[in-house]
Formats: sequence, C-alpha cells, structure tokens
Amino acid sequence: MIRLIPTIDRRAREQMLAKIKARSVVFDRDLLSSVSSIIDDIRNSGDTALIDYTRRFDRVGLRPQILRVDPETLRSAAAKVDPCVLESMRDAIANVQRFHERQIETSWEFKPRPGVVLGQRITPIDSVGVYVPGGTAAYPSSVIMNVVPAQIAGVKRIVVATPPRTITENPAVAAAVVELKISEAYGIGGAQAIAALAFGTETVPRVDKITGPGNRYVAAAKKLVFGAVDIDSIAGPTEVVIVADETANAAFVAADMLAQAEHAEDASAILITTSESLAGAVADELAKQIDDQPRKEIIRKSLAQFGAIIIVDTLEQGCDIVNDLAPEHLQVIVADESAITSQVRHAGAIFFGSFTPEAVGDYWAGPNHVLPTAGAARFSSALGVYDFVKRTSTLRYSAEALRVAIPKIAALADAEGLRAHAESVKIRQ
Amino acid sequence: MIRLIPTIDRRAREQMLAKIKARSVVFDRDLLSSVSSIIDDIRNSGDTALIDYTRRFDRVGLRPQILRVDPETLRSAAAKVDPCVLESMRDAIANVQRFHERQIETSWEFKPRPGVVLGQRITPIDSVGVYVPGGTAAYPSSVIMNVVPAQIAGVKRIVVATPPRTITENPAVAAAVVELKISEAYGIGGAQAIAALAFGTETVPRVDKITGPGNRYVAAAKKLVFGAVDIDSIAGPTEVVIVADETANAAFVAADMLAQAEHAEDASAILITTSESLAGAVADELAKQIDDQPRKEIIRKSLAQFGAIIIVDTLEQGCDIVNDLAPEHLQVIVADESAITSQVRHAGAIFFGSFTPEAVGDYWAGPNHVLPTAGAARFSSALGVYDFVKRTSTLRYSAEALRVAIPKIAALADAEGLRAHAESVKIRQ
Repeated sequence: MIRLIPTIDRRAREQMLAKIKARSVVFDRDLLSSVSSIIDDIRNSGDTALIDYTRRFDRVGLRPQILRVDPETLRSAAAKVDPCVLESMRDAIANVQRFHERQIETSWEFKPRPGVVLGQRITPIDSVGVYVPGGTAAYPSSVIMNVVPAQIAGVKRIVVATPPRTITENPAVAAAVVELKISEAYGIGGAQAIAALAFGTETVPRVDKITGPGNRYVAAAKKLVFGAVDIDSIAGPTEVVIVADETANAAFVAADMLAQAEHAEDASAILITTSESLAGAVADELAKQIDDQPRKEIIRKSLAQFGAIIIVDTLEQGCDIVNDLAPEHLQVIVADESAITSQVRHAGAIFFGSFTPEAVGDYWAGPNHVLPTAGAARFSSALGVYDFVKRTSTLRYSAEALRVAIPKIAALADAEGLRAHAESVKIRQ
Repeated sequence: MIRLIPTIDRRAREQMLAKIKARSVVFDRDLLSSVSSIIDDIRNSGDTALIDYTRRFDRVGLRPQILRVDPETLRSAAAKVDPCVLESMRDAIANVQRFHERQIETSWEFKPRPGVVLGQRITPIDSVGVYVPGGTAAYPSSVIMNVVPAQIAGVKRIVVATPPRTITENPAVAAAVVELKISEAYGIGGAQAIAALAFGTETVPRVDKITGPGNRYVAAAKKLVFGAVDIDSIAGPTEVVIVADETANAAFVAADMLAQAEHAEDASAILITTSESLAGAVADELAKQIDDQPRKEIIRKSLAQFGAIIIVDTLEQGCDIVNDLAPEHLQVIVADESAITSQVRHAGAIFFGSFTPEAVGDYWAGPNHVLPTAGAARFSSALGVYDFVKRTSTLRYSAEALRVAIPKIAALADAEGLRAHAESVKIRQ
C-alpha cells in the first residue's frame, strides 16, 4: 500500500519527491480563460449573471433577494448542531483567539535625527470575504481559522460566501458562522462568488480581501481577481512530513499518516526515518489501522500515489528533504530535536513530540491551520493577523532637517532624470 | 492645464475620481495569453528560449555565458557614477537601512496552559529576484528600496535581473547594485526574465520571490507565476493626493504636483483643499513652474488627464475622498492635522507638513518607496522586511495536555466526517 524507499535508492527518492512537488496547482489556459469569462459576466451584469451562474452550477432556483442568507435561516440551521460539537467549537475559538492575539502589531514612530519623525501605522483592512466551499469540503474549522485572525486584526466587515446549500445542510458550518457573530452570509459559490466579492454586485457589496479554500475554479478566480483585491495564498493539495527516529511510536505515526491521507486522493503523507525497524512497524500499522476507516478508499489511493516511507542515514539528510519539500505540516518525533530545529528552514507548521499530532493543530491548539501548501512554505506563512492589516509609512521633516538634505536629494533625483523631483525639494531651501 | 472642481460640482468630482480609479492595471486576455506562451517556452526550453527572446525583444546578440553580467562589467559601469551621486546614495542606503531595521520581527513562544507550548518562528526567504526595468525607468532608488529590506530580513541570495543594456548604460544603477554588494545580476528583461527567475534555467537558478516594477508584460508575468513563487504587489500608475488648507504654501504644493506628474502620462496629482484662494494660487504656480521642466510634455498630459484641484467644504469631506482613492502617497499640509490622522484609513505613505515633500520619501528618508498603487492601499502595505520573511507556527503538547483535549478534538473531527483525524488523537489516550 505504501512505498518503502531505502537509503541507498536515491533515484526512487528523487522520483517520489518530484511526484509530490508536481502536485502543485497548475492553471491551464483553458481554465483561466473560462473563469475569466465568468468574472467578466459578473462585472458587467452583476446580480443577473450571479443568479444565472448559481442556477446553472448549483442547480437551485433563486430570486435575487435570497442571494443573501437571511438571519433566521442561519439561526435555525445553527440550532441543529450537536451540543457537544458546539461546546468544543467554543473552546477551539477561544484557543485560536488566544494564539492570534499574540500577532497583534502596534504602530510606532521614531526620530532618527533632530527634526525628523518616521513611523509605521497599522490599520485593519475594511472588509474581508471568507469563501467556504460547499459539499463535503465545508469545514467549520476553516470558518474559524479564516474569521478569527480578521476579527483580531479589527476588520469591521467580514462576509461569508458559500454555495447555496451549505448553510442549511451543514449545521456545524452554520454554527461556526453564528458563534463568530458573522451576520452577512451569501449563498453563492464558485468563480462567480469570487468575482462578486471582488467587484461587487447590486446585492453583494465588494470586499477588499478574499480568503478561504476552494476547488480549481475558485482558485483560478482568486488568482485572476488578485490586484483588484488581495487574496490569501492559493491552496494546493495538503501534505504532512513526519521526521521520526527509533524512539517514535509506530502506531501514532501511522495514525497521523492516515489522517493526512483521508483528506483527498492527492494528499501526501511522508515518513522520513533513520530507523528501519520503525519503517517496517509503521508499514504494518498502516495496513492494520486502515481497515476501520470509513474513507479507506481515499486513503489507499493517497498512500499509494503520494505516500512514502523514506529511510535516511542521518537526520541531517532528512532535513534536506524537508527543506526541499517545504511541507505544509511537519511532525518531529525524535530524541534529539536540536538538529532538526537548527536545520529546517521551510515548513508551514511544526508539531513537536509524540503527543502533538497534526489534528491538534487542525482543530484545537490555536495556531492557524491555513498553511502554505505545495512548497509555498519557502516564501509564505500561516494565515494570521498580519494578513488583515496594512502598514502605512508616516514621515515628517522640519524645515531645518530638510534643508541639510536638499543637495543630496536633488543629486539623486537629477541622476534619475527627474528634475521636477529635484525642484520640489530645492524650492523649500 | 489642470481642472478646478468646486465643492458644489459633485458630479465632476465623482467623474474625476472614477477616471483616476479606472487607471488600475487591467490584464486583457490577449496579454495574459501571449505572456503565458513566453512563460511556457522558458519552462520548456530554458536558456535556449531565454536567449531567443532576449535577442528578439532586446535586440542584442547573446551567447549563453553572458546572460549573467560578469563582475568586471558591473564594476567598470559602477565606476562611472558621479561621486556626488555615489555619496548621496550611500547616505540614502544608510537611512533606508535604519528605518527597515525597525521592522525586524523576532520569533516567540508562549505557554497558554501547562504542557502546551505554542510559537511563531521567523525565518528569511532563501532567495529573491529583484527586477529592474530598463531604459529611462531604471531607477537606482528602486534597487535600494527592493534590496535593503530583503537584506535586513536576512535573505541569503539576492539577484538582480534587468534588460541587457541597463547596467552598461546606467552607471547609477550599476553603482547601486555594487554598493549593496549584489554579485548576481542577469542581463535579461521582460516576461522572459520573470519566467526564468520563477522556474529557473540552466544559467539562472530559480528564486523564491520576485519583486520590482516593470511594464505590462512584466506585470502580467508576475501575476501568472504567482503561486509558484511569491511576488510583491503589481505596480500600477503612481499617484499623490495632497490635502491642504489655507496655511499651505502654493508654490510648494505646485512643485510636488509637478514632481508626481513628471513620472508618466498616467500619473495622477490631486490637490484637495478647503481654500479657494490656495486652489487658485496653486493653479497659477503650476502654470508658472512648468515652463522650466524638461519633462513638461509628460507633465502637461498627466495634469490634463489625471490632475485636479478639488475644493471641499471641510477636511472631513477631503478624508472621505482620500479613503475612496486609497492613494499611494498622501501629503497633509494643514494647521490641524488631528482630523486627518484620525479619519484617513487608507494610504501607502503619509507625508506631514510643509517640509516633507514626497521626494523626501522617494529618495531619502528611509521608509520604502515601493507602495501600493491604484487603490491597493485598501489592503496592502509598503514593501518591507515582513515581505521577505515567513512565519512557521510551532506546537508542542505533553501527553497530559493532549489527554484532556482528546474528546473535544475528536468531536470536531467527527463533525467534519474525518474519522482518521479523530482516531489520530484517540490512539494517544
């Protein structure tokens, strides 16, 4: 079911890593072109186009006034949630809030020299749209992870958009929306929802930033509207890399790999270990634990295609593979963690020790579960409060402070052939 | 030459603002499609395609080994810079470094409860490519503003890409590259340079993030490679809004508007004032000062199309216009600044007082001059050290800390239909 790659088989290892990296989101021209048309239609025809696409793609009859989910529908859907789930959700929200409060940044000013005051002002984005996919991919935890950092940042208007049936068919999602005190929700999905959020329609006022996962149409639409609004990163297939030595518990490691693999057929679960005996034991545990899994068909395909147990000579070698993959999730279960912490440069989140399975981070601990995928941890970060604020530079010069700098500023402006720039300082002599 | 819009003429004001906002970068499908082809060619054929496009678009003969600018060429070009410009550049670099050092973030950890340690690790991006446009748009100040925050962030590999002739024809750009101790520079430009930086060729190793301004081909290419690598925001036409009352010096205000307008025909310079007499005086000064300007044709077109003097009843009304435009640069020259500072929510950078012309920020003071344009200040920030680091979440739970949370995590996972997630915590009971 899962491939064991011994240390010596460098070629098999490289092929496996290349295969995992090749999963990254690719936008073919046909997709971009058809999504472009949808966006143009929404920009040109607003609600009319939005209703038309919603009828066609979501197969629901719609009148314009029900593009927006009414408060009563939201409340009654939320009321159906299991009380035990609701209680857990409230605790999770509190944990997520507590972590994200640490990310609050404050404005500052300083005086580099007499007569000069420079600063950085932090202000929240005005409005944010959170996209929640429909069907089985509608996760209440995603609602929490997208909304809480925006709220902590001070965003005044937070809007949820999700395909028409999500709210009524998924009480846990409705409950998350209600618990987070979001009152503006739209029953719209796909590329048309992204276009409506980015450019606005008669019913859907535009937002300044769009976050949240989605299928390839949603991802392509986010890419295309980027610039008109901000977006979070484009979510690709999910992955975990577990670096473990002989001290790791094979049953735990296998359980974590199964959890990752159950997400989707293109999810990737990789164990990198220095221990041949752990490798064998994990393979056995995988075979044993998979039988009870309701999603075992997905798991089987995921593990067969993108799962692997890679045996390495040293943890250092393991770290090189981790940096090459820049995984979304990294679990570290080794006796001596120092080698790992000093060498690993790229990972979305790192889970240390035997009792920090990835699921703790997905639902509970507090750090955001919206993480860079497909190698994007090389250059991007977990979603956070910093994604919902902007920084404005502030500058103030006194007459005297400017005076001494005039010849130098003018020299630089003249060197760029921008005489009016030079004149604008010289006139203040 | 410039339009005066009186308070009462709401319609003229709205038309003007709409016209300014409509300048924002639009990517037509033809542009995206032809740039897509260039990117595909570079991905498929590497140096061969890169050399081919460079020959065609930049009309230079090239052998592969000179895609990279050799150190001697760089040094000898830099040596030609005016000593006075070089000295000013060194001071400017020091100022920019000093401001950006304030943006350094540090990693943190905290213990929300016994047995739980959560944290955020800050690490630099490994490698960054800075694009420098060729011809008259090759500005040494842009090299400084892109490179310094990356260096302060700790980025190890910083690469400059610029069309083949830039280095030899523009000593100030060469000098900026040398002063900043950048040794890896490529004589490549346009969409093909962006593709090479994003995906790598035999000669150009790929980078993790691409920053820097460029023409519409460069902008479209950056948009298309976004996801495979990170990019800074997509630069649109530049703009300044000056909010001034009767205390402002009309000659200074006019000089600042001319400086903005000389950038390009699509640059926008707007004065918003409560003072009719200032409005008239600025219009007179513009007419007077323009005559000496070498770039007066550009200035004339820019002011005629995208320049305006808008008279408002109150500064509050002025702030509403500022928030609507979310300008790249905002100058504030009023007796009572408190109304402005409390009401303005969106601006790339704010310049306070009579002696802080925009040119101080463009070249000298320290804050970054790479700023969000075309209304992007609603959701994005000046380029900064934060753009060149990434945040990795860290999590650690003890056995006991996990144990008490198991039922709640499992309830949430089960509510999402992810049984293997639930099992991965229960197995640790």
